[in-house]
Amino acid sequence: MGTPRSSTSSNFTVIKSPNENVWGGLTDVETASVVHWLLQQPELNLTATDDAGEWDNTISLVELMRPNKSDVLQYLDHDQPPPTRYAHVVLDVRATLDPYYAEILVGPLPVTNQSATTWVPLEYPYTRKTQGRIRNLDADHDTIHSEWLYKISASIVDITLELFNGTALGLDNDTIRNSGINPLWQGDGRTIRWNTFWNLPVDDFDASSILPLGLFFKSDITGRDPSKWKLEGWLYNNIFYETTNAFRKAYYSPGFVKLLSNVEGDWARTDQQGPILPEDQKQPSVMLAPSGARYALDTNQKYVTWMGFSFYIGFSRDTGVSIFDVRYKGQRILYELGLQEALSHYAGNDPVQSSTAYLDSFYGFGPYTFELVKGYDCPIYATYLNTSFYKSESTHTHVDSLCLFEYDTDYPIQRHTTQSYVSSTKNIYLTLRSVSTIGNYDYTISYTFHLDGTIGIEIRASGYIQAAHSTHNTNYGYQIHSALSGSMHDHILNFKADFDILGTANSIELTSLVPITTTYPWSNPNRPRNTMHLSRRILSSETESRLNFPQSATTTMLSIINQDARNSYNEYRGYRVLPSSPLSSGHLTIINSSTLIHAAHWSEHDIQITQHHDHEPRSAHPYNNQDVYNPVINFNEFFDGEDLNQTDLVVWVNLAMHHVPTTGDLPNTVMTTAVAGVRFVSGNYFMGGQSRGTVNMVRVGFGDEDVVEEVETFGQAREMVEVVVRPVEEVLWG
Amino acid sequence: MGTPRSSTSSNFTVIKSPNENVWGGLTDVETASVVHWLLQQPELNLTATDDAGEWDNTISLVELMRPNKSDVLQYLDHDQPPPTRYAHVVLDVRATLDPYYAEILVGPLPVTNQSATTWVPLEYPYTRKTQGRIRNLDADHDTIHSEWLYKISASIVDITLELFNGTALGLDNDTIRNSGINPLWQGDGRTIRWNTFWNLPVDDFDASSILPLGLFFKSDITGRDPSKWKLEGWLYNNIFYETTNAFRKAYYSPGFVKLLSNVEGDWARTDQQGPILPEDQKQPSVMLAPSGARYALDTNQKYVTWMGFSFYIGFSRDTGVSIFDVRYKGQRILYELGLQEALSHYAGNDPVQSSTAYLDSFYGFGPYTFELVKGYDCPIYATYLNTSFYKSESTHTHVDSLCLFEYDTDYPIQRHTTQSYVSSTKNIYLTLRSVSTIGNYDYTISYTFHLDGTIGIEIRASGYIQAAHSTHNTNYGYQIHSALSGSMHDHILNFKADFDILGTANSIELTSLVPITTTYPWSNPNRPRNTMHLSRRILSSETESRLNFPQSATTTMLSIINQDARNSYNEYRGYRVLPSSPLSSGHLTIINSSTLIHAAHWSEHDIQITQHHDHEPRSAHPYNNQDVYNPVINFNEFFDGEDLNQTDLVVWVNLAMHHVPTTGDLPNTVMTTAVAGVRFVSGNYFMGGQSRGTVNMVRVGFGDEDVVEEVETFGQAREMVEVVVRPVEEVLWG
Repeated sequence: MGTPRSSTSSNFTVIKSPNENVWGGLTDVETASVVHWLLQQPELNLTATDDAGEWDNTISLVELMRPNKSDVLQYLDHDQPPPTRYAHVVLDVRATLDPYYAEILVGPLPVTNQSATTWVPLEYPYTRKTQGRIRNLDADHDTIHSEWLYKISASIVDITLELFNGTALGLDNDTIRNSGINPLWQGDGRTIRWNTFWNLPVDDFDASSILPLGLFFKSDITGRDPSKWKLEGWLYNNIFYETTNAFRKAYYSPGFVKLLSNVEGDWARTDQQGPILPEDQKQPSVMLAPSGARYALDTNQKYVTWMGFSFYIGFSRDTGVSIFDVRYKGQRILYELGLQEALSHYAGNDPVQSSTAYLDSFYGFGPYTFELVKGYDCPIYATYLNTSFYKSESTHTHVDSLCLFEYDTDYPIQRHTTQSYVSSTKNIYLTLRSVSTIGNYDYTISYTFHLDGTIGIEIRASGYIQAAHSTHNTNYGYQIHSALSGSMHDHILNFKADFDILGTANSIELTSLVPITTTYPWSNPNRPRNTMHLSRRILSSETESRLNFPQSATTTMLSIINQDARNSYNEYRGYRVLPSSPLSSGHLTIINSSTLIHAAHWSEHDIQITQHHDHEPRSAHPYNNQDVYNPVINFNEFFDGEDLNQTDLVVWVNLAMHHVPTTGDLPNTVMTTAVAGVRFVSGNYFMGGQSRGTVNMVRVGFGDEDVVEEVETFGQAREMVEVVVRPVEEVLWG
Repeated sequence: MGTPRSSTSSNFTVIKSPNENVWGGLTDVETASVVHWLLQQPELNLTATDDAGEWDNTISLVELMRPNKSDVLQYLDHDQPPPTRYAHVVLDVRATLDPYYAEILVGPLPVTNQSATTWVPLEYPYTRKTQGRIRNLDADHDTIHSEWLYKISASIVDITLELFNGTALGLDNDTIRNSGINPLWQGDGRTIRWNTFWNLPVDDFDASSILPLGLFFKSDITGRDPSKWKLEGWLYNNIFYETTNAFRKAYYSPGFVKLLSNVEGDWARTDQQGPILPEDQKQPSVMLAPSGARYALDTNQKYVTWMGFSFYIGFSRDTGVSIFDVRYKGQRILYELGLQEALSHYAGNDPVQSSTAYLDSFYGFGPYTFELVKGYDCPIYATYLNTSFYKSESTHTHVDSLCLFEYDTDYPIQRHTTQSYVSSTKNIYLTLRSVSTIGNYDYTISYTFHLDGTIGIEIRASGYIQAAHSTHNTNYGYQIHSALSGSMHDHILNFKADFDILGTANSIELTSLVPITTTYPWSNPNRPRNTMHLSRRILSSETESRLNFPQSATTTMLSIINQDARNSYNEYRGYRVLPSSPLSSGHLTIINSSTLIHAAHWSEHDIQITQHHDHEPRSAHPYNNQDVYNPVINFNEFFDGEDLNQTDLVVWVNLAMHHVPTTGDLPNTVMTTAVAGVRFVSGNYFMGGQSRGTVNMVRVGFGDEDVVEEVETFGQAREMVEVVVRPVEEVLWG
């Protein structure tokens, strides 16, 4: 992550962070020194750098190893020096019949004294103890395409030409493509692919994922010897053919039913279409920042302060943005808050939809966090920051790929009308946002900060859906175009919220609203009253900490509290977790997914609480899809019955979008409804509402005739400001 | 509702509505003519106008009787003349031992020919057939206070002075007050009140509802003869005393425990408090409308059009704003959308909290829809409209009490990044808003309209909570101040959504995402796959149409569809109902409330569907609290097993806020978390995403080096506009 460009963000207040951002990433120099050092270690047998041949050993990743929380707290809270820095390195070891990824730690950094630097296998953060070695099912990626998939496709070119008017031969003039499932089928020691064909758009629009053609083939690609790979059959119109010959024979037999193809057209294009709406060519409403930014930033340390909040920004290949040491008025509320993994689990009558469960950290959120569209993804006046990622021996940068801005909701945070006055308070908030486009889908991820001390996460999805051929898919989606099913799928995004409420010794309190029937000293003892009360309970251990909302007919609120930090009214101080999404479930619909096996057990409940350990920093690993029966991190193993009573806790929250696409999702999914969020709201944490602190409130007093007699504005800005609204075009050419 | 003031709203486009707004309300002349006519009818025996003595017969309400849908559709769709207009009149008949409200219809209007005008009892819209007569338990309101409650209070003035340093005698220098439960206890033919004492603030702040004092008394006020009313006991510190003597004796006995009082202080005041936050005295972000409004308005007919939407605005005493004939691109989607009732049901260890279940239409949303705070409740640039309500023989007006404005969310409605371009579309929406302050609580109610054809309702609550004395209330709320419990309560607001999807013959489709285990032609028959599919079902009748979300472990979506209107892909065209709130339940926690009895059965499920009838126009009646055992409208009686398959349907949606106040709700509840909403989202209704219609989108093309090569802006406004941001103070003095 680099420094902001002065052109768009020169107006924030420059500050110096109180501490070093120990999560901020490696410097370019550090990265280069690690790469240099790695290439000098003969035992690593690195034969090339990134993306060399399939039988090379290469460096896949060099980034900062995030320090252990226990070490960081010594630095932040106990005057110890910052933790020693290490590089987290992933080697892609493919010069072997059993290719694997090697996770290693290199350090200490910087690599100044060559001999002081060492590497060790990285194993401690993973539940599976394999000295950091993870099998690589994707080692022969290029060969699989060039020597296998294209050849299979070529073997039926007569059929694809006739059925689809297209060929997929790996040539520039291919008009169809094929792509496969993820994860691969991994049972019984075999590695099985299913592939299917998709039309390519006739123009630049990225519409291929809504142009499925309905023809599937299965192949066994176990091992690294292509001569031993086997085509295992074809599927068309729900009929399985065990060989190409069988398929061809059927195809050329009388009565063979040919399915409709999905072909690009305006329906698949995102450009403006149709008659222009009345008045739409006038400038719409636009948010402006008349006095510039009201936050402060240390751009070197990626440290932000705003209206009492402060936090550091971290960024990683796997999961993009995380924030650390989130404080309000100096007191830490969260040690860490960040995305862990995003699952998109499809279902369908065909093997490709049924076997698709993307675990997006495999691709990585970091490298796909692209430049934001100013005035669209974020306001023009936002501060735009760069992000960086490792590629081919060095650090690459996506400029203006994070944004930070203040915004005003269209409603106040507080208001009250009385007979003699009305009071109202502006609801200004701060947003830190990035957008990661993993293939067809764009995830907009926002961290928000509010005047009442609330912290929020909001995810919204757009982009092209991945759709299915509609034949036989009636039970798996609506038909939304000629031969297209809006393939049903669950998006589940897991976030880690490592709360520290007035220290690390915290507990979980469940407060339920429960209907009851009871009598009181003042009520008729023979006629019990139907009413409700609160039931409060502290979670005891990890044996009961995997929860769904709502738990039952009752409404239950979950709070992270500190039993040793009661307020003066004897209530626990804490923060409530308030999930919010259009449909209430936050967990995967499928039970014991045959596609995921053990790769994403984190997706099975709405909210899950574990005891914090330095060796359980993450709920998921990007290579979990490489070995779904024995994943690197099996989230189930976090739950070993440990005590949750006044210990350091991690709250793992899932945000879910259960998506059954309709015609309204064509050409792209609409972000107003594809949304999920969670808010962390103070619960008896403060002695009163924090929104009283802002001066951006008003009290208007009026007399008997409702004539305004007083306008109290509490010292807020009173100057008149002229603002120029420029066409967004100017900015976008910049 | 009057015309907008030109000062704030001169810039919208003026249009003429295609039809007459038959829901728009009476003209002032009509109201006056009806009042005049009523006073001339000897059989009505009107002895005075509003709010006269307790033994007068008076006019409580004169407003437009909303015409039957069946008649209106003849007008809108079948070239018939508009329905004949009638006035809905409520008489307060108190010159009798058995006081009652008389609901009558007066018309036809206008009252030009006196003899052609008649009145009839209004009974047909009510489930209870009593010729429109509803008993009035509140007839002796003034006497109860002056002759009863203040005297009881005076009887223990020695104790209130010592305990509370206050007296409640009905004098100007009272420093405490008492107030009672609603509904009153009505069992066994008796009318029972419970009252409790509250501190009064020492200044103008409206804080009394958070200053409870913990002393309660019970009285039987059955009948109209105060000499027969009986004090039935006192409750203090959870001890019930059957007589004042018993209470006094205990009070003056050694060891009597005196509770802490709640006393106003800064904690209860809404003004700015504490050190000013860094940079808070700079102007915050502000939404502006550089080219003015982009909607069109017929101010006489209260008719609005915006980006393909059109609707008429109605307004009534009981429920405030409703909208009618909501169309998108000319096609009706909703005949009616509006609030029906708002319930605030408390619980507690004391009789007042336990017996409080406000049904706010009793007070009426209309008369409490006050002037909005410009720049706070709505943007300064909004169009502000007036509302009017009947009071004392004429129409009174609250100026600028509705607002209409466009806004831009902080995120786009669509975006997608590809290797060669990025596209993004602005998410502009229209809001119609009012705020009704019913006593301590302010309900902000917004109807929103979106570029994808979505229609939303959003409610947010602020204002002062009603709190309880904390003694013995641990199980009913958190202690949030010295002797204060944030009394737990459910807000349930019922909305009527009368959908007409391509005609009135509609059905309800439930689409559930269901985990399944199954095999496929392409899968191993011996190893069934764990996956999911859709289960679709049409609701048959009112026997199964009272639903909660989620129904079970599955996620279920509810759509209003038309089985006779399939799209070209054979899917039903329709709209989905997508509720959204921080906690998922939309129904009352209490089961069979002893306080409500039969007065609010609409509150017991999240969403309920009935067959439409002209005689079931509303789910609730404002006087349901006057006879909870035999309410005017018993919503249960709507469910008589009628067919819901391709008939005219009404969807009754509850929006709920389950509120367990914390210290963060002091002094006022925060609107960021006190929110509930529902969205009606197109589901296969259109052939593609409607957001493609706007020109406020952009496509930026880039070359190999990520250099911008194209900025396509689709004909959107390109001019530079200068805008002046003025201090809000200027506007508020206006």
